[in-house]
Amino acid sequence: MFSEDLRIVSDSSITVCGHHVVPMMQAAQFTASDAVPLVDYVGDAIIFSGMQDDDIPGIGQYDDFHTIDWQRDIARDRMRHRYIVKKRQDSILDLIKGAHDAWSGWVCVLLVGVCTGVVAGVIDIGASWMTDLKFGICRQAFWFNREQCCWSSNETTFDHGNCSQWLTWPQMFGESREGPGAYIISYIFYIGWALVFAALSASLVRMFAPYACGSGIPEIKTILSGFIIRGYLGKWTLIIKVVGLILSVSSGLSLGKEGPMVHIASCLGNILSYLFPKYGRNEAKKREILSAAAAAGVSVAFGAPIGGVLFSLEEVSYYFPLKTLWRSFFCALIAAFILRSINPFGNEHSVLFFVEYNKPWIFFELIPFVGLGIIGGCIATIFIKANIYWCRYRKYSKLGQYPVTEVLVVTLLTAVIAYPNPYTRMNTSQLIYLLFNQCGISNSDPLCDYNRNFTDVNSAIEKAAAEAGVYRAIWQLVLALAVKLVMTVFTFGIKVPCGLFIPSLALGAIAGRIVGIGVEQLAYHYPKIWLFSGECSTGDDCITPGLYAMVGAAAVLGGVTRMTVSLVVIMFELTGGVRYIVPLMAAAMASKWVGDALGRQGIYDAHIALNGYPFLDSKDEFQHTSLAADVMQPKRNETLAVITQDSMTVDDVETLLKETEHNGYPVVVSKESQYLVGFVLRRDLNLAIANARRTIEGITGQSVVVFAGAGNPPTGPPPCLPLNRILDMAPITVTDQTPMETVVDMFRKLGLRQTLVTHNGRLLGVITKKDVLRHVKQMDNEDPNSVLFN
Amino acid sequence: MFSEDLRIVSDSSITVCGHHVVPMMQAAQFTASDAVPLVDYVGDAIIFSGMQDDDIPGIGQYDDFHTIDWQRDIARDRMRHRYIVKKRQDSILDLIKGAHDAWSGWVCVLLVGVCTGVVAGVIDIGASWMTDLKFGICRQAFWFNREQCCWSSNETTFDHGNCSQWLTWPQMFGESREGPGAYIISYIFYIGWALVFAALSASLVRMFAPYACGSGIPEIKTILSGFIIRGYLGKWTLIIKVVGLILSVSSGLSLGKEGPMVHIASCLGNILSYLFPKYGRNEAKKREILSAAAAAGVSVAFGAPIGGVLFSLEEVSYYFPLKTLWRSFFCALIAAFILRSINPFGNEHSVLFFVEYNKPWIFFELIPFVGLGIIGGCIATIFIKANIYWCRYRKYSKLGQYPVTEVLVVTLLTAVIAYPNPYTRMNTSQLIYLLFNQCGISNSDPLCDYNRNFTDVNSAIEKAAAEAGVYRAIWQLVLALAVKLVMTVFTFGIKVPCGLFIPSLALGAIAGRIVGIGVEQLAYHYPKIWLFSGECSTGDDCITPGLYAMVGAAAVLGGVTRMTVSLVVIMFELTGGVRYIVPLMAAAMASKWVGDALGRQGIYDAHIALNGYPFLDSKDEFQHTSLAADVMQPKRNETLAVITQDSMTVDDVETLLKETEHNGYPVVVSKESQYLVGFVLRRDLNLAIANARRTIEGITGQSVVVFAGAGNPPTGPPPCLPLNRILDMAPITVTDQTPMETVVDMFRKLGLRQTLVTHNGRLLGVITKKDVLRHVKQMDNEDPNSVLFN
Repeated sequence: MFSEDLRIVSDSSITVCGHHVVPMMQAAQFTASDAVPLVDYVGDAIIFSGMQDDDIPGIGQYDDFHTIDWQRDIARDRMRHRYIVKKRQDSILDLIKGAHDAWSGWVCVLLVGVCTGVVAGVIDIGASWMTDLKFGICRQAFWFNREQCCWSSNETTFDHGNCSQWLTWPQMFGESREGPGAYIISYIFYIGWALVFAALSASLVRMFAPYACGSGIPEIKTILSGFIIRGYLGKWTLIIKVVGLILSVSSGLSLGKEGPMVHIASCLGNILSYLFPKYGRNEAKKREILSAAAAAGVSVAFGAPIGGVLFSLEEVSYYFPLKTLWRSFFCALIAAFILRSINPFGNEHSVLFFVEYNKPWIFFELIPFVGLGIIGGCIATIFIKANIYWCRYRKYSKLGQYPVTEVLVVTLLTAVIAYPNPYTRMNTSQLIYLLFNQCGISNSDPLCDYNRNFTDVNSAIEKAAAEAGVYRAIWQLVLALAVKLVMTVFTFGIKVPCGLFIPSLALGAIAGRIVGIGVEQLAYHYPKIWLFSGECSTGDDCITPGLYAMVGAAAVLGGVTRMTVSLVVIMFELTGGVRYIVPLMAAAMASKWVGDALGRQGIYDAHIALNGYPFLDSKDEFQHTSLAADVMQPKRNETLAVITQDSMTVDDVETLLKETEHNGYPVVVSKESQYLVGFVLRRDLNLAIANARRTIEGITGQSVVVFAGAGNPPTGPPPCLPLNRILDMAPITVTDQTPMETVVDMFRKLGLRQTLVTHNGRLLGVITKKDVLRHVKQMDNEDPNSVLFN
Repeated sequence: MFSEDLRIVSDSSITVCGHHVVPMMQAAQFTASDAVPLVDYVGDAIIFSGMQDDDIPGIGQYDDFHTIDWQRDIARDRMRHRYIVKKRQDSILDLIKGAHDAWSGWVCVLLVGVCTGVVAGVIDIGASWMTDLKFGICRQAFWFNREQCCWSSNETTFDHGNCSQWLTWPQMFGESREGPGAYIISYIFYIGWALVFAALSASLVRMFAPYACGSGIPEIKTILSGFIIRGYLGKWTLIIKVVGLILSVSSGLSLGKEGPMVHIASCLGNILSYLFPKYGRNEAKKREILSAAAAAGVSVAFGAPIGGVLFSLEEVSYYFPLKTLWRSFFCALIAAFILRSINPFGNEHSVLFFVEYNKPWIFFELIPFVGLGIIGGCIATIFIKANIYWCRYRKYSKLGQYPVTEVLVVTLLTAVIAYPNPYTRMNTSQLIYLLFNQCGISNSDPLCDYNRNFTDVNSAIEKAAAEAGVYRAIWQLVLALAVKLVMTVFTFGIKVPCGLFIPSLALGAIAGRIVGIGVEQLAYHYPKIWLFSGECSTGDDCITPGLYAMVGAAAVLGGVTRMTVSLVVIMFELTGGVRYIVPLMAAAMASKWVGDALGRQGIYDAHIALNGYPFLDSKDEFQHTSLAADVMQPKRNETLAVITQDSMTVDDVETLLKETEHNGYPVVVSKESQYLVGFVLRRDLNLAIANARRTIEGITGQSVVVFAGAGNPPTGPPPCLPLNRILDMAPITVTDQTPMETVVDMFRKLGLRQTLVTHNGRLLGVITKKDVLRHVKQMDNEDPNSVLFN
């Protein structure tokens, strides 16, 4: 029995109801050197959940859709840690347990990294096979994708990536590869498979795990900021998200697998954390693992471990101590290492879109790069506004009741429109890679149809006029840009797993490539303009359109997500282009500023606001002048629900619990004086009274509930009920004159759930996180009632 | 006059002494829409420093060696911001002022970046010229270093980097280049120049800027955590540090220029921030610029912008909002870009120690890499313990009185010992580069004396036995390791600018190279061992000793500084070796764990503790169980110095100010009840009373000082003195039962200077940052009196 280990350190123990007790916070203070045993309050040692076997179920846990109390959870963890450190000296088993506890953080992130890498490999392999299935099948082994199939056939020359082993669908039906008949058969198979995949994906999500839809990043941001959504990171969500993601990516919809990867990694983090009670049973500690998992998710999505850590730090995480930084890095690195060992794409380069340009960028090019940033910011703002408008319409109209039908309609439209245009037909990753590339000797795409002869592999590429192929490609790219923008607006938010990193990158890469070709042809036709007179006056090609595509991609992604440092780092890990940090940063900055000027929120924050999650953004500064007194509950003419420290009966307390719905109640000296003593949670109060009725004899509705106080409460029958063990004697308080900016700061930095407002020591009211969020909304002229949860 | 713009927003204004007034914190609440002018308290609108011309000098500033109050400074900045936003509508000039204010953060970091890049270029050029001056001089132009001299001479073959234009000192005296006479002349010149440079450096530091010595990183960490050291970042420190750094680096002492670069960049940040009142006049905001400057310093030191930002985040900074992350990145990038444009070394590669290895690392090599990590951790711990022992001896003995003599003795010893060994004679950066390199066809150093023939440039390097040259080199390296370790112990802490990044890297690189050669020869002689049976069974060389040098360098640096993520990122930006993140991380982790196990602190934290700076580390967790009541002042049997809200006279207050030395006083309702009203700073109280005596007629020693309260204070002559404007009505309070872990957390996260301790609303005591620091020391069984400052 645990309470035998308790000893008093300081002399501030209190006698309540004839018992000798320690106040709640002080119970943490047992050391081995003190000698007053405290065995006489059996039954209410309930805060030590996680350490003893006989704890009341549910204590220390939170209800669904509630905010967690970081301070309380962290305090619980430190207490548990001290208990283990102390026990360690008792026996070898305890020593091993202690060592296990000390290492469990590292072991847990190691497991998360390994599992994330493996799952990412499975998704990559599955998605690439099924994407190719839309076009044909391998004669030799149907489970090979086109690339593997052609490798195994040992042929030396491939025709557009096709080989004799790879059967396209027209070939299966005896048609030739080319010709109108073949085209129609291919078209039909393409649409057919897309619809099958999409229908499967949407049905799975609808039937088994509704939380598996979307990218998951807005919800994960909210969860990491200290909110409970049960099942959002559970095993069913994980399984369905993995399967659904493979299907939805393969269906050719305008979506990416990068955002959902973060969700999948977080699910793995959540599930694996249950192996380690230190994390599984403590919501605040669990979020350290989830932050690391989010980093691993981005790391495997882009092969960018450092970018992943910075993404987790900048975009997703809320509470990010430096220990977490180091563990996140470890986790991200392990995940990337495992994925690279699996090598699902079978290529040599360790980066996804490896680029190598012959020419460095020239200083004057910063002007078009900033221009691209502005264009990217505009595209991103249009996308966000249109997407939010459509999602709101879906939410409040009948459309929301037919998710599978919606997915099928969007898939059909996407497939029908996408197939005829080669740039929308191909895999989006391939498109980005093609656009990032520079036109070399081996590139036969129409995009590289320049009037030039390659005489020597190593000689510089000469400047050349664009020919018909390039102009045709530009028109197709403009069409592709419009189609992708419109389809992505309708796609992001449908009920299948879908991310928008890849679509955003593609939009930007298309815009960038078009601008790049424009600047290049300008430099060719007007080499005398002062801008081009320096570096571009020689015959060599001085402008690389591929670099513009890369910069444009960063600009749009930056505008959509409002990432900054992590975006630049991801881009340079993604492409291996260390030399291009300055252009990338110029474009990302321009895009972010344009985005901030045109619309305040990034896509994730906009979706958080749309769903009414209680997310207190740590990036926005609170600029208003209100005081704590303006925000606190109750407002004027209402009375505050309080409990007195030693004068209310069990019946009084139960009536209060029935009549009000607060999550907790301040405890005061007396109703008249209102001097603050502490704070007690509704949940604890309910559990403690129920427990006392069961275990302590003679407790009736007339028993006086005693929380604290050195006075002499009634000792006669019925016996009084000591509840000092559930009283938090160290609630965070502010005065009524405290500016709200300070209060908001305290909520953010200390992770508060509520704070008590006092004036000259007297309790005036309570401010909860919900009150703060509503106040922020109100001050920003938004609807305060859009904050939905506690 | 500013106070005419004040308007009351809420209705909680108070009537004091017959005047209509607003409490301090609420004064922030002026908006344009309200209409009650408040012109009747002229003279005490003193908190609006930074906005008006007639503010009392010194208000809002801090004394030297004092801790800043982050909450107060941030609140002041928000108030100033709101004032500017409001004024913006008044005139075009104000609009421009507003725009200037909004942009000033970016402009300031831009300037800091540019200046840091330029200064770094000057230092690099100066140091490389003067380092070569120890060996000879350029015939053509004495201001060329050896490399520039030989370039300008257009010779095609160089003999060990020498050319006919470059005159070594023996040649100047008519001797040949080789031979015993030449050796002696070279030796004497080497020692002579070294002593001249060191003497100059030490004298300059001693005479003009004592703060310019050392690396400066411990002090900058302390300053960034919210401490004032006047002059530490001033212009004289800057100038002397730059000149002294060039001299001390050139003198051949075992020190680097990387740490001082951070100090130099921070000086630039501090000086340039005075161009922008937003930052120059607000200590909390200024630290945002200083964080960015620190990032720029590391960025130019290593050519590693991302590593610089992470170093600033992980190691140096304390308060690091995300906006600062983005600005730091910008600043670091600009600085690196400028330095690269100056191109002081004239080489092509954008990284300092560019490496390219033919072979990837093999999985089993993780074992020696982790071994290197452990060796690195041990070397680092020996270094830290010895260095701290010696610095403490210097501090408390007569040695400290002869700094210049000490520098000369250390320089003489270093020069005498270093010259005979080629690996200690050469520039430390060159040594590191040599050790990192793999033995290719062009490398003629004894380290590459293997029994192999290069038949083809492109063929793989074959495995080969080491010959005599390698074994001789190993002995020289072992000696060099011992000499460098001992000399660095005595060097770090002498009174010249000196950093220890480069010496640490060199120590590790030597150890790593030796281990690497050992493993390589093991693989050559015993290729059948199971470890080597896989990748090493072919004839090709499978072990790259240069990689071991790189890993060893990371291990020692990691052990010395306890950097983690930033270390790995710096190493990979430094070498361009993206493929080697996993080995680097394995070694860095092993080294950090060994270091943490053997001695708790990194070198910077150890120096902070040695100097007694009030630095509250945000990385250490507070593990003890004490309560706020155990830490607060006054202890039992002492009384707390308080001021009552409306019953003390000016004489009473002045007596209290004379008799006590606290930095601030709590204001209570009355001495009897002790209910807390607010907090007033000593400095403000002094200034306000002095000001009132000057400006308000009839104020005498008998005037009652009124801070707050709705009561009726004596109105008769002498008139009472309203001081509500300097009263902070929103002090942060905790209850006496609050665990110290929560209190420490609040001090860290909210940047508090003090907190008030209450029980049931009554004031019990005060906890200052110094109390917290002393308590932490006491709990860790260290001397609490080693905390020196407030």
